[in-house]
Amino acid sequence: MTVLSPSAIRAAVQSRGPGLAALFDQLRQDGLDEPGVSRDPYGQGEQRAHASVAHVADAMGLEIDRDAAANLYMTLPGRDRSAPRLVIGSHLDSVPHGGNFDGAAGVLAGLCAVGALQALGVTPDRDITVMGIRAEESVWFQVSYIGSRGSLGTLPDGALDVRRVDTGRTLAEHVAECGGDPAALAGRRRYFDPARIHAYLELHIEQAPSLVEAGVPIGICTGIPGNFRYPEARIEGSHDHVGLPRRFRRDAAIAGAEFAMALDTLWAEYEARGIAMACTLVRFHTDAAAHGLTIVPGSFHFSLDIRAYDPAVLAALEAQVERIIAGIEQRRGVRFHLGTRASAAVGPVHPAIRNGLENAAKAQDIPVLLLGSPASHDAAAFAAAGVPVGMVFVRNENGSHNPREAMTIEDFLDGCAVLTQWITDAPVLPSV
Amino acid sequence: MTVLSPSAIRAAVQSRGPGLAALFDQLRQDGLDEPGVSRDPYGQGEQRAHASVAHVADAMGLEIDRDAAANLYMTLPGRDRSAPRLVIGSHLDSVPHGGNFDGAAGVLAGLCAVGALQALGVTPDRDITVMGIRAEESVWFQVSYIGSRGSLGTLPDGALDVRRVDTGRTLAEHVAECGGDPAALAGRRRYFDPARIHAYLELHIEQAPSLVEAGVPIGICTGIPGNFRYPEARIEGSHDHVGLPRRFRRDAAIAGAEFAMALDTLWAEYEARGIAMACTLVRFHTDAAAHGLTIVPGSFHFSLDIRAYDPAVLAALEAQVERIIAGIEQRRGVRFHLGTRASAAVGPVHPAIRNGLENAAKAQDIPVLLLGSPASHDAAAFAAAGVPVGMVFVRNENGSHNPREAMTIEDFLDGCAVLTQWITDAPVLPSV
Repeated sequence: MTVLSPSAIRAAVQSRGPGLAALFDQLRQDGLDEPGVSRDPYGQGEQRAHASVAHVADAMGLEIDRDAAANLYMTLPGRDRSAPRLVIGSHLDSVPHGGNFDGAAGVLAGLCAVGALQALGVTPDRDITVMGIRAEESVWFQVSYIGSRGSLGTLPDGALDVRRVDTGRTLAEHVAECGGDPAALAGRRRYFDPARIHAYLELHIEQAPSLVEAGVPIGICTGIPGNFRYPEARIEGSHDHVGLPRRFRRDAAIAGAEFAMALDTLWAEYEARGIAMACTLVRFHTDAAAHGLTIVPGSFHFSLDIRAYDPAVLAALEAQVERIIAGIEQRRGVRFHLGTRASAAVGPVHPAIRNGLENAAKAQDIPVLLLGSPASHDAAAFAAAGVPVGMVFVRNENGSHNPREAMTIEDFLDGCAVLTQWITDAPVLPSV
Repeated sequence: MTVLSPSAIRAAVQSRGPGLAALFDQLRQDGLDEPGVSRDPYGQGEQRAHASVAHVADAMGLEIDRDAAANLYMTLPGRDRSAPRLVIGSHLDSVPHGGNFDGAAGVLAGLCAVGALQALGVTPDRDITVMGIRAEESVWFQVSYIGSRGSLGTLPDGALDVRRVDTGRTLAEHVAECGGDPAALAGRRRYFDPARIHAYLELHIEQAPSLVEAGVPIGICTGIPGNFRYPEARIEGSHDHVGLPRRFRRDAAIAGAEFAMALDTLWAEYEARGIAMACTLVRFHTDAAAHGLTIVPGSFHFSLDIRAYDPAVLAALEAQVERIIAGIEQRRGVRFHLGTRASAAVGPVHPAIRNGLENAAKAQDIPVLLLGSPASHDAAAFAAAGVPVGMVFVRNENGSHNPREAMTIEDFLDGCAVLTQWITDAPVLPSV
């Protein structure tokens, strides 16, 4: 690829700013559902976002394509069209009443990068495909990475039969309505051969305020965490009268509280040692059916999600959880039933991409922080399929999955400049 | 009253055993609702129990009466019918799928005592009224002591309008269906002038296994606890993405867990110092509406019930709860909203009745344990109205409010012997 000056790249990226700000506004209008936006996957919200993005891509002269999962592909042709392509993407759905940037920023960053190349009059070495991915937010269908795994032919068995929690209709019905091909999806017909993808890059707003705290606009991702999860765990104790003295009680809720505090203490220890992890009890509750009764809670329910960046750390954490449970069972006369275990492997970020992004930021004179991604992203589905992946995070004040997401267009364009610089540096990726 | 030998009293009580065992069996059949019995207040279950008990009382020649709350009064006339009467009672309702003895044992104990007096050919100094009380279990209407407070004219405002949680129909409708007079109840027409009650005595199965642990059949009650309650408290934190690092989180569920553990630790300290209290979080839960989301819990709900026997202990506990909350709010960036506070004053047991019951047990050669009553009982409603009260507990292996309640007829008759001995001792009660 032509060698370009960082300042020329920067100017080309900046020139896309007003158009992209307008597209962000359009997406907000498309999905408006006060408070915030709702881009329901395989529903009206996501459909409108796909239409608006495709309209802009078409006006840019990009090649438009769609697959069985109704993902959107917008390609700037390269010199060697047979070379493995570069994919830049993220998802266009949102959580209910979410923010405007979680997901969409990554798609618009792809458009920004290819638009900047167009403005620079550069034809890339290989095709660059900007991907608008379907249905990343698992809240709707309770299945993760539907769009990205659909494109890779790695959707799990039975995924087409799950029902959207609000409509009660199956994923197959929803996909068909949006122009997809559920039968092909069920048959795992893939759009991408992972070996034909040079790399997958994703820009995403940071979902924590680490960059805000550090006063740095851009983060370069060092890894996507693996996890183990127990979505439907419970503790059985004894339903007893509230008059029962403490020494006789087998209170399942207090056992749950002790478990939560032990995990919180464990996390604080890891934090103090500088080992990144996260632990969340999303569900943590007594039986609603017993809430009217004046009884000591005899059963308690929780979900557990523990994530870390190192398989050895995950294994150590799982052993520690087992020891914590054994101690509580013995002290409090209760039994833990963890139920089904789910897990995801640690998603490695390709070291050459990470280094390349750091060098690109240096060339652009943009300060960066190296950050693990405690959240899950479509990049993890590509990494799991063997694709070299990299991620860029953009400073965001108020977390994500809420209407207060706050990314400035300036920070966004900084992220786009890093991406575009990386593309024009045309790195060769050694296999890891 | 005639002076009788303890052995004659014991023999008269024992003679009532087979009849009362049969009545217990009848009550179990009346309320059978596997597992356990359901004597739903102002419903079919309680109605059948009242009918069976009234049938036996009628056969014993007792005077039968009912009031606006449809409580059942079964009176053995005394020599001086104008003297303040002695009331022996308890409730005939049960929790759903409860045991056969919680409540009913106290009514049958009254029948046993007056039956023993009849067998001995004794006319008491004053009327003795056995009372079958309505609707003590607050699980159904979420109002406590409906029957006993109805008889005393102390029902709270609006009680007649509350709806039974299962039928959705008002207390007024239920009362009318069972032959009561809701308008009179709403107007606080009382059946009893508290000044005309000599004393209220209640026998009840122990709801904890303290007597089983000590190997003693009978407990003499030293006090009925007061309490403070927050039925609808909540903690507000921040709903954040599960990827948020620990230092940024304001996790309401973890704050709830820390609160529960702090209370458990506080209770353990009181226990170690020999100060009786109880603390229960019946409801302790995340928002069900957020259970599908992959977010850190931003709100958490709980109910708090703290009870103790000493007003000073209650006041100290309430101050400690406030300090615990302030500390958690500061450490975890959350806010507690305790909501409506309810409270009940400590219910004093009349010291002369307590001493009298101890002496009666000594005369009967029955070992007793002095026990606080950590649970609430109708006796508390009478104590609150200024009536001298006393309580006798009977050993029970498996707690109450469940089908596994286990009281032997032998232990029950020990309790009846203590009651009957106390009556024949005809104690004068100095005012306290």
